[in-house]
Amino acid sequence: MSSNYRNFRNNVPWLILFLEAVFIVLFLFSEDDLSSPRISDPAFQDVNHMVIFGFGFFLTFLKRYGFSSTGFNLLIVVLGVQCSVLIESLLDFLLQRNMEDGLKRITKATVSTTAVVISSGAVLGKTNPVQLILMTVVEIIFFHMSRWINHTFLQIPDNIGIMHVHLFGAYFGLAVSSRFSEPSPRSEKNASTPKSDLLSALGILFLWVFWPSFNSVLAADKSKAIYNTYFALAVSAVTAFVLSVLITKDGKFRMSHIRSAVLAGGVTAGYASQSIEYPWIAMILGLLASAITILGSYCSQRCLNPALKIHDTSGVHYTFGLPGVLGAVAQVVLLVI
Amino acid sequence: MSSNYRNFRNNVPWLILFLEAVFIVLFLFSEDDLSSPRISDPAFQDVNHMVIFGFGFFLTFLKRYGFSSTGFNLLIVVLGVQCSVLIESLLDFLLQRNMEDGLKRITKATVSTTAVVISSGAVLGKTNPVQLILMTVVEIIFFHMSRWINHTFLQIPDNIGIMHVHLFGAYFGLAVSSRFSEPSPRSEKNASTPKSDLLSALGILFLWVFWPSFNSVLAADKSKAIYNTYFALAVSAVTAFVLSVLITKDGKFRMSHIRSAVLAGGVTAGYASQSIEYPWIAMILGLLASAITILGSYCSQRCLNPALKIHDTSGVHYTFGLPGVLGAVAQVVLLVI
Amino acid sequence: MSSNYRNFRNNVPWLILFLEAVFIVLFLFSEDDLSSPRISDPAFQDVNHMVIFGFGFFLTFLKRYGFSSTGFNLLIVVLGVQCSVLIESLLDFLLQRNMEDGLKRITKATVSTTAVVISSGAVLGKTNPVQLILMTVVEIIFFHMSRWINHTFLQIPDNIGIMHVHLFGAYFGLAVSSRFSEPSPRSEKNASTPKSDLLSALGILFLWVFWPSFNSVLAADKSKAIYNTYFALAVSAVTAFVLSVLITKDGKFRMSHIRSAVLAGGVTAGYASQSIEYPWIAMILGLLASAITILGSYCSQRCLNPALKIHDTSGVHYTFGLPGVLGAVAQVVLLVI
Repeated sequence: MSSNYRNFRNNVPWLILFLEAVFIVLFLFSEDDLSSPRISDPAFQDVNHMVIFGFGFFLTFLKRYGFSSTGFNLLIVVLGVQCSVLIESLLDFLLQRNMEDGLKRITKATVSTTAVVISSGAVLGKTNPVQLILMTVVEIIFFHMSRWINHTFLQIPDNIGIMHVHLFGAYFGLAVSSRFSEPSPRSEKNASTPKSDLLSALGILFLWVFWPSFNSVLAADKSKAIYNTYFALAVSAVTAFVLSVLITKDGKFRMSHIRSAVLAGGVTAGYASQSIEYPWIAMILGLLASAITILGSYCSQRCLNPALKIHDTSGVHYTFGLPGVLGAVAQVVLLVI
Repeated sequence: MSSNYRNFRNNVPWLILFLEAVFIVLFLFSEDDLSSPRISDPAFQDVNHMVIFGFGFFLTFLKRYGFSSTGFNLLIVVLGVQCSVLIESLLDFLLQRNMEDGLKRITKATVSTTAVVISSGAVLGKTNPVQLILMTVVEIIFFHMSRWINHTFLQIPDNIGIMHVHLFGAYFGLAVSSRFSEPSPRSEKNASTPKSDLLSALGILFLWVFWPSFNSVLAADKSKAIYNTYFALAVSAVTAFVLSVLITKDGKFRMSHIRSAVLAGGVTAGYASQSIEYPWIAMILGLLASAITILGSYCSQRCLNPALKIHDTSGVHYTFGLPGVLGAVAQVVLLVI
Repeated sequence: MSSNYRNFRNNVPWLILFLEAVFIVLFLFSEDDLSSPRISDPAFQDVNHMVIFGFGFFLTFLKRYGFSSTGFNLLIVVLGVQCSVLIESLLDFLLQRNMEDGLKRITKATVSTTAVVISSGAVLGKTNPVQLILMTVVEIIFFHMSRWINHTFLQIPDNIGIMHVHLFGAYFGLAVSSRFSEPSPRSEKNASTPKSDLLSALGILFLWVFWPSFNSVLAADKSKAIYNTYFALAVSAVTAFVLSVLITKDGKFRMSHIRSAVLAGGVTAGYASQSIEYPWIAMILGLLASAITILGSYCSQRCLNPALKIHDTSGVHYTFGLPGVLGAVAQVVLLVI
């Protein structure tokens, strides 16, 4: 370890401490309305649980980044949520909007921070903590800008305008990832073990269970959003099993294949879950999403990534990016019809 | 691996795909009422979480069926839920019943699918995927018939008439299991390791925590159902510890003994939890249930199973079957009094 | 194993069985009001989930007490909850108070039992089961006396008067621990492995996620309690990462350091979370709590514990005791201002 690197590492705690001091000072000037909660606390708990545990374990699949990714995930989430709440307060103040109650604000902030967590999946094993923390702050700012554009220019209500979080997170992560050189294939940093793959699959299962809560947490009609998301998830899980058997040569299910496609339906249904009238539409969306994810995983690993020199550690491009694009297209088609 | 077997395995994905296509087409013709949810979404989330994670880990105790049982469990649940929702829609249409809202429908479907998950515990390690999937569809159809009989001929309201799900699941599983030849004792397929036992115990603990939600999810008086179920579970947990020490020779607690008896109280309280007036009745039920489970585990492993040539992999007979019988008897006794 | 010890162990199940019989008989005479629930069932589920899983895994960090601590934790919780419900009923009867509904009663009992669980962390690896069970009953009685003193003499409303549970649990545990001789340092009983440390860190993460539910479960203004607790927890998590890097020589995050400080904010905010008006106050409390915990962990391991001959296995003194003291001081200061 060179002395330069050691000096650099010594700056990490001071950077975080400085950031935290700035946050506390800014919170001094922000106003809060804690009077009338319009969001139920179990919904917030579910999303919080999912972001800390689900994404925490989803990111543990590299051998050398075992449990430390769960720790980093916690650090990213708590910094991201504070940052997001502050930006929201600033926007409320600047645009003279009505303030939202505290619980809804941290729920929205947790949903927004999901973008950073997904991005961190693309750069896992290539960044140092300082870069991760800077990415967190910058990405939260950009994401709020994109939400503001959605709200102001595209006239999309905020509870749907926030659902492009997976899409944004995946492509922001890929853009950041393209700035880093790919780790050498022989390096241990990029290796995964069966055990770490298993933990990652466990994280995906966790995300699968909580995805209906995630899609419905800000919805006006919660029941409908849960119903549609559940069917989209169910069909994409079935499709993931089918495609997994078709791909492998010995005809067995493999959790590593299922891992990338099982969530696709939930991501795709993100936008449309609040407006789909019949469950069969959600089911067909789930089927398409799962197929696109598996196809995308083949294409991006073999053609796209080497050509564009992008190294996407957790495969966020096909796990969250492509189903997000499909969901956006589906929402536009459904609105036109 | 013979080429016959390989050909057979190649049919698995097409079977699932065909089933899924049938489901989607049938959903086209089913109607939905998504207007007024009468069930809270956290209740659905708890049951969903419990069925995917709790039963998923409960089934992982065979060495060679480690994480793949969790995967299969997911596949069974998503297929079973879709199948159950469709049959419910068909019955609503045929019997001209009022439609239920979407969330209540998938909650009921998830509860019904528990029967299949329990049955799959009895045949674990003996069936191939095609047999499991066929069992799922057939069992869901039979379970809906039994619910319809309960409702029409026995005049039992539907929220209690569904609570024989453990009983039905256990004995259906045993009936299916008796059709298969017992794996040879030397075969690795039937072996468990300390680590897989531990994971299974973890699953049981998970089920223990969520059992009050399960028993109360369809209850009219949720608070009462949770209260009674909690006390039944608490006393059966205490009894499980006591009996575990009495059975082992060195006087230590063993999670493998506790595993089979800790849930018994919750299963027994399934029917009666909504009508018991005093917690001490639930506590005595929990005590009896736990004792019957431990006794049953001795009897069935030594006398019954060899005599009837039944091989019950996860011990669903004494874990879910016997406490279910006790619960049914208790409910009748309580109604008479 | 001497025959004395074997005889002694043989008494364990009879003691538990006797205790359980007493509980059931006493429940015969207790009255219940199951009519009008004033507490939501998901809130109870969250606290139940947290106490069984979170504390269960928090206590697994000794190599020789792996999963058995999770089992013992379950036994302690179910005995403690029954005991606490009985004492509450007795007090309601003696003091002619209005009865509370069933769900609120077991929620309060679960919160009270947290004190025993924390105490058991201090004596882990030094006590036998009989001592643990006796400690459970005695501690629950003392804790109810302290709550009664809070309520009657200090005029503190019961939903705040119960929040000294961590403080009480930690110092009761230390007092009990000082009665036992320290295990010899060479003994295996006190050793931990990286894997058991990891499980313990996982338990802490679990507690972190559910802490806002814990602090808000009995609060009048749930939304405010969750909001303030979340910010206190977020800042203490950030501070824990910072201090972890500053302490270690190679400048890396270590989950074992973070483990003791990440919860501090939540413990400190326990009293004040329902009355803090601005989130920045909660944030500063979180910062102070985390710093005090790390400082306390150094002092108590090097100076205090050897001097007082206390052996605190899980470090409950600095994990729960010191932040609890800080929270009490903060609450007094806030009330004065």
